[in-house]
Order: sequence, then C-alpha cells, then structure tokens
Amino acid sequence: MSTVEELKLRVRELENELIKCKQKSYEDTEQACSRPKIDQMSAEVVDSNPYSRLMALKRMGIVEDYEKIRLYAVAVVGVGGVGSVTAEMLTRCGIGKLLLFDYDTVELANMNRLFFQPHQAGFSKVKAAEHTLRNINPDVIFEIHNYNITTVDNFTHFMDRISHGGLQVGKPVDLVLSCVDNFEARMAINTACNELGQTWMESGVSENAVSGHIQLIAPGETACFACAPPLVVAANIDEKTLKRDGVCAASLPTTMGVVAGMLVQNVLKFLLGFGTVSHYLGYNAMQDFFPTMSMKPNPYCSDVHCTRQQQEYKKNEAQRPREDVAEVKDEVVHEDNEWGIELVSEITEEELKVASGPALTLPDGITLAYTIPVEGGDAASSAATVGDTDCSLEELMAQMKKI
Amino acid sequence: MSTVEELKLRVRELENELIKCKQKSYEDTEQACSRPKIDQMSAEVVDSNPYSRLMALKRMGIVEDYEKIRLYAVAVVGVGGVGSVTAEMLTRCGIGKLLLFDYDTVELANMNRLFFQPHQAGFSKVKAAEHTLRNINPDVIFEIHNYNITTVDNFTHFMDRISHGGLQVGKPVDLVLSCVDNFEARMAINTACNELGQTWMESGVSENAVSGHIQLIAPGETACFACAPPLVVAANIDEKTLKRDGVCAASLPTTMGVVAGMLVQNVLKFLLGFGTVSHYLGYNAMQDFFPTMSMKPNPYCSDVHCTRQQQEYKKNEAQRPREDVAEVKDEVVHEDNEWGIELVSEITEEELKVASGPALTLPDGITLAYTIPVEGGDAASSAATVGDTDCSLEELMAQMKKI
Repeated sequence: MSTVEELKLRVRELENELIKCKQKSYEDTEQACSRPKIDQMSAEVVDSNPYSRLMALKRMGIVEDYEKIRLYAVAVVGVGGVGSVTAEMLTRCGIGKLLLFDYDTVELANMNRLFFQPHQAGFSKVKAAEHTLRNINPDVIFEIHNYNITTVDNFTHFMDRISHGGLQVGKPVDLVLSCVDNFEARMAINTACNELGQTWMESGVSENAVSGHIQLIAPGETACFACAPPLVVAANIDEKTLKRDGVCAASLPTTMGVVAGMLVQNVLKFLLGFGTVSHYLGYNAMQDFFPTMSMKPNPYCSDVHCTRQQQEYKKNEAQRPREDVAEVKDEVVHEDNEWGIELVSEITEEELKVASGPALTLPDGITLAYTIPVEGGDAASSAATVGDTDCSLEELMAQMKKI
Repeated sequence: MSTVEELKLRVRELENELIKCKQKSYEDTEQACSRPKIDQMSAEVVDSNPYSRLMALKRMGIVEDYEKIRLYAVAVVGVGGVGSVTAEMLTRCGIGKLLLFDYDTVELANMNRLFFQPHQAGFSKVKAAEHTLRNINPDVIFEIHNYNITTVDNFTHFMDRISHGGLQVGKPVDLVLSCVDNFEARMAINTACNELGQTWMESGVSENAVSGHIQLIAPGETACFACAPPLVVAANIDEKTLKRDGVCAASLPTTMGVVAGMLVQNVLKFLLGFGTVSHYLGYNAMQDFFPTMSMKPNPYCSDVHCTRQQQEYKKNEAQRPREDVAEVKDEVVHEDNEWGIELVSEITEEELKVASGPALTLPDGITLAYTIPVEGGDAASSAATVGDTDCSLEELMAQMKKI
C-alpha cells in the first residue's frame, strides 16, 4: 500500500521527468526552427551573418546592388530533382519570394537526387520543400500550390498567380522557372507566359541522366517552346528530354545539381544584371561539353500569343533610340566574348520556316527532340525521322489544346 | 491537503502525460532516423526503392555495373561549400564508404551555400555532415576526422587513413577529393598522394565566386599540383583560387553546386568506367564557358615523389602490350570526340621546362594563379608577374616543407 509520503515523492519524480521530457521536446522543436528573421542584408563579416558571402559580391565588383535580390519573386514549377535544388539555391541567395508548384509526393525513389530526405517520404513535395526552405531562410516569403498546372481550373489559377503573385500586391512575378519533367507541363507554362508576356526559363534533364539544358524564353524576343521542337543536347544514345510513360527514367544528383546550378546562375545574372545571360546552355556529361546557342522566335509559330508578342517586340525595338538598341544587343548576344567560345550563328527566320523538315541547322551537340512531320506528307517517311517518339509536335499540341 | 485518492489520480495523470511525451520524443527521433539499411541494390521500379533511378543507368546503357559503386571508398578533404555537396551526392549515389576530413565549425555565414542548415551552427562540420548523410543513406559507411591535415601529427594520421582506410581492411581508399579552400591543404594532399601513388581530384572556386575548376591528378601520369602553378579559370577581374588571409571571399550556392556536380560526375565516370574522365574542366560563370585541357607531369617537378612516380609510370607504360596502350589512350585523351569540342593540345615537357617564366602556353580562358619567379632573378621584375599574391610558389612550398 502506498503511503501519502510515497505518493508525494512519486508525483515529484514524475513532475521532474515530465519537465525534462518537455524540455527535450521543446529543444528538438527549437532546433527545427531556424534563425530569427533579418530586416536588412548586411555585408558585415561575422560568422553569424548568413549574407556576408553574398554581399561580398559587391566588394568583388561582380554585382552592383546585391540587396535587390529581395525585391524579386520567382515561380518554380516542378519541385523534383532540378526544381528542389533550384528553390534551395534561390532561398539561400535570399530571394524575396518563391512560389512553388507541384502535385507530387516525396518517395524514397527520389533519394538519389539532392534535397529531400527519407523522413519526408509521403509528404507533398511543396509542403516538405517549404518546411525545409523556411528553416534555412525565414526571410523568404513562400507561396505553395499543391496541384497539377495542366488541368483547366488549375491552369487558370496558375495564370492568376503568375500575373498577380509578385512581391508588390497584384503585380506579376519576375520570372517563371520550368523544372518539370513532361511535355504537357512545359507547354502549359509556354502558353501562359506567351499570353502574359512573361519571361521564363526552361530546364531539362535527359532520361538517361547524362545530359541536360537550360533555356531563356523572352516572349517575342527569343524562340518559345512552340516555335520549334525543343532542343536537347545530343548523345551517342537515343534520348529525349520528354519523359515517356512507362519508362523509369534514370537520374543522377550530379547532372541535376549542375543543371540547377546553371539555371539559378542564369537567374541571378538576369535579375541582378551581371555577366552574360545565356539563351541556351547545354550539358553533355559524357564528354563534359557545354554547347551554347541563341534562337530567334519563329514568325510562323502556332501559338498566336507568341506571334503577337513578336509584333510588339519589333514595334518596341523600332521605337527605341539607336544606341540603346546596340547596347542591349551586345549584352544579350554576348559578342564581347574574349574567351574563344565558339558562338553559333543565330538561327534565321528562313531556317525556322523550313524547320518542319529535318533541314534546320543546329550547332554541334544540339539536336531536336523530334522533327515535325510535313503537313499532309507521307506518314511513313516522316515517321522515320520522328524516331522513337510516338507523338508528333502537332499531335502533342492538339492534346494541349484539349486541356 | 492532498488525499491519497487525489495523489493517486495525479500520479496516473502524470504517468499518462509522460508516456505521451516520451512517445512524441521517440517519434521525433524515429523521424530523424532514416530508412532501414538495404543489403543489395535492386533495379525494381517501386516508389520505396532509393536506388531504382540509379540502377536504371544500366538499362539505359550508360553504366555496365552500377552496383560496383558499393565497393569504393572515397576520402573528401574539406566539407565546406563544395565538399559537403560532394559528400551528399556520393552518399545519395550509394558509395561504399566516405571518409570526411575537416576541422571547421558550421556557422550562419555558411548558409549561402547548400547542405548545412541554421540549426547546425556551432557543430563541427564533419559531425553535422555525418548526421545528415547517415540519415539520407544508412547504407554508406562513414569515417570522420575533425582535424587540420596540415599539422605534423595529423598529416601522418591522414596518410595512414588514405593508405589503409579503404573498404577492405588495410587497403587504401580508391580516390581522394580535395575540396579545401587554401594552398597549404592542397599541397599536403598533393604531397601525400604523390608519396602513396594515390589518384586524386582537386576542386576550387575563385574568391569572387564566379569561376571554378576540377582537375584529375594521377601521380606520374598527369601534372601534379607542384608540377606547375595551379591553373585557374580566367576572368576579367583579378582573381585567385587560393584564399588569402583577411579577405572575406564571396561565394554562391550556384557556382559551388556546379563545381561539386562536375567533380562527382568525374568521380562516377572514373570509378564506374563510363564517358570521358576530364583531366581539367573549368567553369567561368560570367560567360558560361567551360574550358578543358590536359597536362603532362613536369619532369623537373620539385616533389621527388612526383618524379619517382613519373619514372614508374613510364616503365609500366613501356612494358604494356601495344594495343592495350592505344586503348587506354583513346579513353583518357578523348580523341573520339564527335561534338566539335575544341580540345587543346597537351602541354609538352618543353613548355613545362620554361614554366618558371610566363611562357607557358595555356588554352583560352585558363590562367596560372601566379608565376614562379626566375631563380636568382630580379625580385622586382618577378614581383610584377606575381601580382596580388604575396607568396611565390617556392615560398609557399618552403612553408609547406616546414610542417
């Protein structure tokens, strides 16, 4: 039988143990919480300043005004092998706002790429990513959308967020990054950005995991995703950037890390105005070859918003003062190049006109994901050039229009 | 006053609360623990298989025997911006064993690079890294050393771990990766690897954060770090790979991610035998330019172990059957190149002989971190080529020898 004294002692013991347990739990939670928010980026060189090494870019003469990064909102569509690392890099760089779109769930099968961890398996990718990223940098504003952008309702909502989800209330985002793994989603982003005149960057990694690319698409100024079949980095083996159903794509954290790095580097250069912003940069991991190129929009593009943007761009260019045009040209076409980079000539309108056949001239190391069959042409002969892909661009675009 | 009944009730309440608290704490810990170990890598395409996308490399015809990755031990020296991501990539790829060397502590000032998180501030880098990596992939064997490899005792221990820390008891590691940020540590690794005949790869990122490189060093076969001043990727601005005291280097997660990706890609190609293993691959982020080159060892290298390895390599090459030599040549010198990569001619022994002056011919985009002053020459004139660096190679090497 328990005496009152024994029971009182037991209560005290239990109370102490509970306090300890709660303290531990609190510390664990505290540990999961990150540093406090920082109002203003400082260049102070102290161990406790998460921005000192970024602000040092100013002292090094690389970036004029690094703090400006806080004024930008970037949408990342697809938070997989490339998108998650892209979001992490932007978060660590101190971007103002990140909008994440994905409808997938973290699986153990994703653990061969950077970012997600085994204990996150089963969580939605956008939720898991937001949790990790907010912990890394609480200064960034996050907006997440756990849906597939290619369905009708979601596409409308996606358009709305792109055009009104910027840092200033009601303003558009500053850049859209495509880190998706399928053709439909890329075309949805292309359609949205053409309609809105929104500059975006596309990224892709091949199914065999050993090549990838990034591409800048400024509606009306550079070729859009519908202007020509998507360009991929060639390899000795048959490959496509477009994921085919039923095929388990290979992937490597290396290739995805390099592509994410090239993409975010291009984003930083674009937003903060330093270096040469690449229009197209490929990565062939087998040969360590990185082809670059530039492509003008196709005046015969099937996307009406693309051709409208082209007209507007031409009109604006014509109205611009002469020196101004030359300056912009220099910046974008990177003719200032002193490194002996073999720059490929831009693809002309004439070349694009015949792009429906296999006549398009591309630089070494870059090929088309497929060719567009000649309209009303011999199905058998065009099939030979289409290769392994079952869908032609037109068929795929028809599918797109259905959604 | 408490009655016995009241006290008993309180004890039950507290016991229940404590059970709940402990359960929660256990679940938190459980969550921090990762997936169970996996005995054998499987290619099965299920969401729960962390190796399915890697094993798919076999089906894609890229890698013949991916499982072999489990047989290799890799040492990573320096677990900072490049080293931590390098270690994470290798962990996710399922490397057999990782040996991590660093003596630094995680700081908030490191948060602009990938991998470490704010709650790890204050922990040793190797301990924090091991914790995260083990959680990501418990199949990897970790061995961590929280010390500076350049002190006498630690250097001896480092040599021992390189030569006996392999997967098979008493055998050497398969590869050493240098991800350090200073000249002394690079020279220590170089000295150790020359003496042991250990192949290693060097990596570096410039102080201004916009260029970097990786380099393969096979003692006796390719130029070692003492054969010639270290090569860096040129930029318009003054820059050095070597960290100078008192200068807060800028850094970017993008550049470091790209360099880590190039490094581990080269490691995978080297260990698993696919693609072309690069001898030197540079990255100029401002222009998106990636120069490659190859450099033979300097027969007049100041490291006696390097010249000894050169003799042994030549002897072995001479004894090798004719066809065998040709085969290896093709593989390494990448002459099979169909992508129009502008391959620079290898630097000859004659060029290296005169490398103490500024006469060394280097491909576009690659420069020496500094030049070696002519022995007994005019101090004032050599100082002009040494530029901002206060130490000459010889001075630095003399310092190295003192330790």
